[in-house]
Amino acid sequence: MKPAAAKSSPAPVSLGRIAEHLGRPLNGSPDTLITAIAPLDAARSGQISFLASAAYRTHLPGTRASAVILTEADVQKCPCASLVSPAPYHDYARTTELFAPSRRAVAGIHPAAHVHPDAEIDPGAEVGPGAVIEAGVHLGPGVVVGPNCNLMQAVAIGADTVLHPGVTIYRDCRIGAGGIIHAGTVIGADGFGFAITGQGRHLKIEQLAAVVLGDFVEVGAGCTLDRGALQDTVIGDGVKLDSRVHIGHGTRIGPHTLIAGGATLAGSIEVGERCRIGGLASIVPGIQIAPGVEIAPTTMVTGDITEADAERAGRCFAGGATGHTDRATWRRNAAAFRSLAATLRRLRSLAED
Amino acid sequence: MKPAAAKSSPAPVSLGRIAEHLGRPLNGSPDTLITAIAPLDAARSGQISFLASAAYRTHLPGTRASAVILTEADVQKCPCASLVSPAPYHDYARTTELFAPSRRAVAGIHPAAHVHPDAEIDPGAEVGPGAVIEAGVHLGPGVVVGPNCNLMQAVAIGADTVLHPGVTIYRDCRIGAGGIIHAGTVIGADGFGFAITGQGRHLKIEQLAAVVLGDFVEVGAGCTLDRGALQDTVIGDGVKLDSRVHIGHGTRIGPHTLIAGGATLAGSIEVGERCRIGGLASIVPGIQIAPGVEIAPTTMVTGDITEADAERAGRCFAGGATGHTDRATWRRNAAAFRSLAATLRRLRSLAED
Amino acid sequence: MKPAAAKSSPAPVSLGRIAEHLGRPLNGSPDTLITAIAPLDAARSGQISFLASAAYRTHLPGTRASAVILTEADVQKCPCASLVSPAPYHDYARTTELFAPSRRAVAGIHPAAHVHPDAEIDPGAEVGPGAVIEAGVHLGPGVVVGPNCNLMQAVAIGADTVLHPGVTIYRDCRIGAGGIIHAGTVIGADGFGFAITGQGRHLKIEQLAAVVLGDFVEVGAGCTLDRGALQDTVIGDGVKLDSRVHIGHGTRIGPHTLIAGGATLAGSIEVGERCRIGGLASIVPGIQIAPGVEIAPTTMVTGDITEADAERAGRCFAGGATGHTDRATWRRNAAAFRSLAATLRRLRSLAED
Repeated sequence: MKPAAAKSSPAPVSLGRIAEHLGRPLNGSPDTLITAIAPLDAARSGQISFLASAAYRTHLPGTRASAVILTEADVQKCPCASLVSPAPYHDYARTTELFAPSRRAVAGIHPAAHVHPDAEIDPGAEVGPGAVIEAGVHLGPGVVVGPNCNLMQAVAIGADTVLHPGVTIYRDCRIGAGGIIHAGTVIGADGFGFAITGQGRHLKIEQLAAVVLGDFVEVGAGCTLDRGALQDTVIGDGVKLDSRVHIGHGTRIGPHTLIAGGATLAGSIEVGERCRIGGLASIVPGIQIAPGVEIAPTTMVTGDITEADAERAGRCFAGGATGHTDRATWRRNAAAFRSLAATLRRLRSLAED
Repeated sequence: MKPAAAKSSPAPVSLGRIAEHLGRPLNGSPDTLITAIAPLDAARSGQISFLASAAYRTHLPGTRASAVILTEADVQKCPCASLVSPAPYHDYARTTELFAPSRRAVAGIHPAAHVHPDAEIDPGAEVGPGAVIEAGVHLGPGVVVGPNCNLMQAVAIGADTVLHPGVTIYRDCRIGAGGIIHAGTVIGADGFGFAITGQGRHLKIEQLAAVVLGDFVEVGAGCTLDRGALQDTVIGDGVKLDSRVHIGHGTRIGPHTLIAGGATLAGSIEVGERCRIGGLASIVPGIQIAPGVEIAPTTMVTGDITEADAERAGRCFAGGATGHTDRATWRRNAAAFRSLAATLRRLRSLAED
Repeated sequence: MKPAAAKSSPAPVSLGRIAEHLGRPLNGSPDTLITAIAPLDAARSGQISFLASAAYRTHLPGTRASAVILTEADVQKCPCASLVSPAPYHDYARTTELFAPSRRAVAGIHPAAHVHPDAEIDPGAEVGPGAVIEAGVHLGPGVVVGPNCNLMQAVAIGADTVLHPGVTIYRDCRIGAGGIIHAGTVIGADGFGFAITGQGRHLKIEQLAAVVLGDFVEVGAGCTLDRGALQDTVIGDGVKLDSRVHIGHGTRIGPHTLIAGGATLAGSIEVGERCRIGGLASIVPGIQIAPGVEIAPTTMVTGDITEADAERAGRCFAGGATGHTDRATWRRNAAAFRSLAATLRRLRSLAED
């Protein structure tokens, strides 16, 4: 039997408060209390849902939700209160803000934190137990350093950035404002650089540059962002990394790019802004990728993708280990592969006729 | 020169004790002391071995082991004491239990642990130095929380579960009884969810649900199990995850499923019970996989695998990035690929004749 | 706005000191002070650069560097001081040593470390705050144990090895001298071993062996090196692992082998010395790989690579999930794949003519 969890439940929120937060008109009583958000088909009384995809429309008439966020077109079929929005998914995202526990700093340094006297900690920052903060570290107002985090010499963290427990940031790395770094992530470990010496041995190239993250960056759990050898590894403003993403040394990720779980980017890469890189995708060293490009999951990118390539390809590339092509070509090739042996056998017998 | 390690050696165990533990008949002296388990060809005097695979049978007559676990059929060729078992590999596994150091809790909270007064810690639980335990956490009897672990608000851990050092569990997540979570694993970090706003920017969707692990779950080192957005991420009873596995938000893994190292499962997936998923395999969002299905290493699953598919395919799927097929088809296609260019050239010249 | 970082800048180094460190002749003033190393095209006054690849030669005449490391052949075109070397890249690597912060131990145990009285800590070792050191641990002279590391029973660490923050090493594992282990890495968690019991359930095989690292091994951040079941997992002298590499139980890696980010090696593998394994490559259990073999990124190795194979293939293998072939064959096949559907269509119409 499972232990009964004393769940850290959020307080209920009135429909009026939600409507006000979203700035959307409400059909229904502003006093109705909402305790949670749920999908249309799972929602119960006291919960709010949203209709953002045609696939879910069949669930609307039968929903037991107390309110639904939906477009004007669906209002008539809604059996309960509704919030009318031109962008229900976006407004669902904004509604989640009202039900999430606060990430606000509770100002103060825990007595069991280890803070060097030469660190500059804003009085509004929060430092958890077991956290280690070395000389020259700068924490802005509202920064949260979770328990057992390690911030080495001269690390700088911008206002309101939250480090979850057990994050390590090596010396000299700089994190912007408004960011979220999840547990166990390591920023600024040495990039993988060696010179070959005699007899197949390797001489370490000291990694002298750092890692710089812009503002509003979110980094998932268990990521590794390596420091540059001579030039900083740079993560642009608004970049979002899923869990277990690896960024090699000296690589630069443009603003607002999204990278999914397990993707592995080698060193000296330049990824443009607003790209989307799928799970377990990989990019070999030195590649340049134009802005707005989408790389499908598990694709290995072994050549540059220029703006011209991106336009030609409809901006989406796929390809597994054989290298990227545009997505339509990839899909035809992958389908051909799935019956490759049989097709070749048939062709051989045709040809030999 | 390597430092000489003061190895934490286990105490020797008598053959009689092993026979009793396994409940198997012993040919030989029950007083013989066994100090370790070793493969047939590497075993020395004082060690026990096992014969569980025909490939190792040639090593039996020459083994220097003091005892061997084997089937009735092999007893005659055994040059030493033997334990006769219908399932030697299973009984080898059970024998390892006698040589492993205890995972039993040494009851008590280390004075250098940071435990919130509103946490409920069973008096039989063990909490290591540097561990941080927030308000509302519930630890059952026999739970071990290793050094420098971080258990956030309202986390609940069932009886006898062991957390190795440096594990982080985010608020509200629940772990069943009898589990093992290896070092550096992060349970309950935010799933990767964003709504697009203007100019290619992204709005965070707060991840309001949690992660729930059943009983007797083992999670390897460096895994990331992300919390759900609206519905919990669920890991069924008896599931075993290797090191560095990623489970996306809202994904549900059925009981007794095994997932190997580096496998990366996106969000909103349902994997049936007793599946086996190979190393570095990946599954894209929203996929459903029937019970008992085996996915080969590095396969990317991009479509549902129904019970009917599984029956047709002999329950085993493979496919790299091109998508899964049944294993036999995959093997023929992969073999065809390994000479693809040459085959196409030959076919072209045949066709053009 | 980013916080201004109080960067932990290294002291400037004179050209004379660099020439002496490298043992190379200097054309220019030995008193010139150098503050950093930079690429030829980015270097500014007061910085040193190097010319190690023909592709960069065009940047030499216009460089603003104060000195360049280059071969005899390029001295005439150098607009500034030069250091003449037969191996500029190697000498660049050696120059980085002069600009890197020291990894030398600052002898002593931090009062907030938790050290068992039965641990043997050399008086020249450094132990950081929050580090946990259990009974029987042996630390050699010059060892650095970073903050919040966890060294379980009887772990032994050779002279001058540096553990960055948050490293966990399970009981009985042994690390050689002169090594570097980056943050968040876990050495010695249980290998993934289970015996099947009734009804598709799994019985844990206790992992009774350990992990042994040789001398001068570097392990990146977030790696997982699992302990062996009956035989140790062994990492040879001089091996370098990138971030997020996984090594399964009982696998043996030969000396001076390099493994890139995200590579996932299963158990019971033997990799020869001086191999190079690319990012996200994978090797299935039990494989043997000859010395000096190169495995391309994302290749899955599913069969042994013998010395004879390696010679035939020019020692380099590639292949994605379809299994490895020699690199030239792979490249032709991958290229053929990228137009596979179109080629097959054309062949079909030719054949049916």
